[in-house]
Amino acid sequence: MPTRVYLDWNATTPLRPEARAAMVAAFDLIGNPSSVHAEGREARRLVEEARAEVALAVGAVARNVVFTSAGTEANALALSPGLRGPSGRPVERLLVSAVEHASVLAGGRFPGAAIGLIPVTRSGVVDLEHLRAQLKDGPPALVSIMAANNETGALQPVAEAATIVHEAGGLLHVDAIQALGKIPFDIKAVGADLATFSAHKIGGPKGVGALVVAEGIAGLEPVLRGGGQEQSRRAGTENVAGIAGFGAAVRVALQALPEDVEWMATLRNHFENGIRGIAGATIFSEGVKRLPNTVLFTAPGLKAETAVIGFDLEGIAVSSGSACSSGKVQPSHVLSAMGFDPMVAQGAVRLSLGWSTEPDDINRALEAWRKLGNTLLRH
Amino acid sequence: MPTRVYLDWNATTPLRPEARAAMVAAFDLIGNPSSVHAEGREARRLVEEARAEVALAVGAVARNVVFTSAGTEANALALSPGLRGPSGRPVERLLVSAVEHASVLAGGRFPGAAIGLIPVTRSGVVDLEHLRAQLKDGPPALVSIMAANNETGALQPVAEAATIVHEAGGLLHVDAIQALGKIPFDIKAVGADLATFSAHKIGGPKGVGALVVAEGIAGLEPVLRGGGQEQSRRAGTENVAGIAGFGAAVRVALQALPEDVEWMATLRNHFENGIRGIAGATIFSEGVKRLPNTVLFTAPGLKAETAVIGFDLEGIAVSSGSACSSGKVQPSHVLSAMGFDPMVAQGAVRLSLGWSTEPDDINRALEAWRKLGNTLLRH
Repeated sequence: MPTRVYLDWNATTPLRPEARAAMVAAFDLIGNPSSVHAEGREARRLVEEARAEVALAVGAVARNVVFTSAGTEANALALSPGLRGPSGRPVERLLVSAVEHASVLAGGRFPGAAIGLIPVTRSGVVDLEHLRAQLKDGPPALVSIMAANNETGALQPVAEAATIVHEAGGLLHVDAIQALGKIPFDIKAVGADLATFSAHKIGGPKGVGALVVAEGIAGLEPVLRGGGQEQSRRAGTENVAGIAGFGAAVRVALQALPEDVEWMATLRNHFENGIRGIAGATIFSEGVKRLPNTVLFTAPGLKAETAVIGFDLEGIAVSSGSACSSGKVQPSHVLSAMGFDPMVAQGAVRLSLGWSTEPDDINRALEAWRKLGNTLLRH
Repeated sequence: MPTRVYLDWNATTPLRPEARAAMVAAFDLIGNPSSVHAEGREARRLVEEARAEVALAVGAVARNVVFTSAGTEANALALSPGLRGPSGRPVERLLVSAVEHASVLAGGRFPGAAIGLIPVTRSGVVDLEHLRAQLKDGPPALVSIMAANNETGALQPVAEAATIVHEAGGLLHVDAIQALGKIPFDIKAVGADLATFSAHKIGGPKGVGALVVAEGIAGLEPVLRGGGQEQSRRAGTENVAGIAGFGAAVRVALQALPEDVEWMATLRNHFENGIRGIAGATIFSEGVKRLPNTVLFTAPGLKAETAVIGFDLEGIAVSSGSACSSGKVQPSHVLSAMGFDPMVAQGAVRLSLGWSTEPDDINRALEAWRKLGNTLLRH
């Protein structure tokens, strides 16, 4: 039996050997990082080393890195009414792009009436003119725009958005979960006030994330209260092994970034060249800058759920959209926001590649597509 | 150099070999449990197996187990206004015992004005007559009482409380974090409507917990929203390896329970007999039922912070109270609630034992106490 081909890296990545080693080493540390004895201090050291790694990787100051249980929790923490920057005026409303992850669309602790949607173009890129108009009237806003979309891979103009948002007296949160390890991302270069990261998208473990806050940002209200962990910004005993794995993963991911980008882009382009030969095939966000590893495509008559199962039976793991919303078969909110018909949005298949994807994996995916196409696209 | 003696098991326990093995095995599973392909389904299976283990251990139904990132998050989730039982009337206020963990005292999503404190006796046991009176007037209440206190080890009359609470039309949440694996705990036997557990207190990893809900309880509002994980009760990609470790730990902890209890109690009593020889020494909650592994004590003139450091230098890890509030030197809120003077409350040292504690560990702790006592208690 041929080995499985895993092309669903945007859902989650394999654990990097360095992250695994860091976690296994952490298993030997008994202590609770809040304890003052030697065992506690050893656990504390591990957490703080990982914090420094994450900070270094994204251009932040270590004390401004808040470890959470996942990107979802980091997003919930970020979307905090009352946040304030240098002006001292707290944000009172939230604007989120229409293609954000469900955890951002949920709006954190802003009441529904205080949340607005920023539309995107047909290519899935945030409409900055619209944002500018939305910011014009009303109280200071927290704006949340992702660095790269998890479904299409489309990069968002977050640096330009930061300028616009700051000119209007607002703050910018960037969900950079899909960007980390796939494109360079630095919160200072972008001008983000808050940014979210997740370990399992870069070769760290599932169940660890981080919210990174820029210097000078105040008013972040904790979601989880109790103990004084994370400088009272996030209560709860730390996932010490997971955090150590996150630190190791981010270090390796950043070192490997230039090489990984070239590798993934070459293989992704190889796949796209194969797709382009299909009559009527569409690659979403094709004309805009995208992550090097992602392709979301469809073809007339394609049903994504059937396609995913078909690929799976051929030994190939692909996705019909974001993993977090799979299980429930419903059209992608991302493609709907881009103005595509629900029928089209239900037919989109995503392949996402990673550092260990091989040329043969792509060849097998193309073969499967040629084989399945006959069945899937028969009307 | 003699090996270290670890007597701070209530802060966190060593990882059990079975939990470690389960986690390392989970590291090989690439998939996201929300993905529909084979890799996703494999990860899903692991999560569901662990869910069944936790449910079995505490007398719950698997689908009513919600995995969280820690006990703190499970407590935050539990304290949800709007919860309702068979009567259908939602709870509108919260009553918590004065000796609860900080994450319960924080009150979850109840506004401060809707939160009341239930006093405890001088022995640290919840005053049920007071509770009965507090429930008499006012709307249905959610009552939160821990099964066993983390500092004193005092067991709380949670089954009696359940009867009183239900008669008054309320619901009972039990933080059973310190009870699990140390005394038998079954949510049906207790009559609890919600109960909280944490993996790292029973030999599982740090960073995993669970809220268990009884059948027929509705209205639980998620804290983390976004993806549809945990039946939309807790969004965010699951900590697959951590959950697998939790499942393995709970299985082993429950199998070992009768033996562990006897072992820990024998050693703890040995230590207490030594302590009783000291002039003026006090063992807190001595006259009431306690966890078999915990002793909180003081002696005239003792300063807990100094004692913890002194023990640490002798190679012995002990605690000055709950780990979550250490770092900030302040008197234990538990002893304050029991009516002890702040000076006394600042002098309490906790030893907590576990399954691998050895008689020699206790002898070394007693020796250290005799050696330190001369210094520590000199006025």
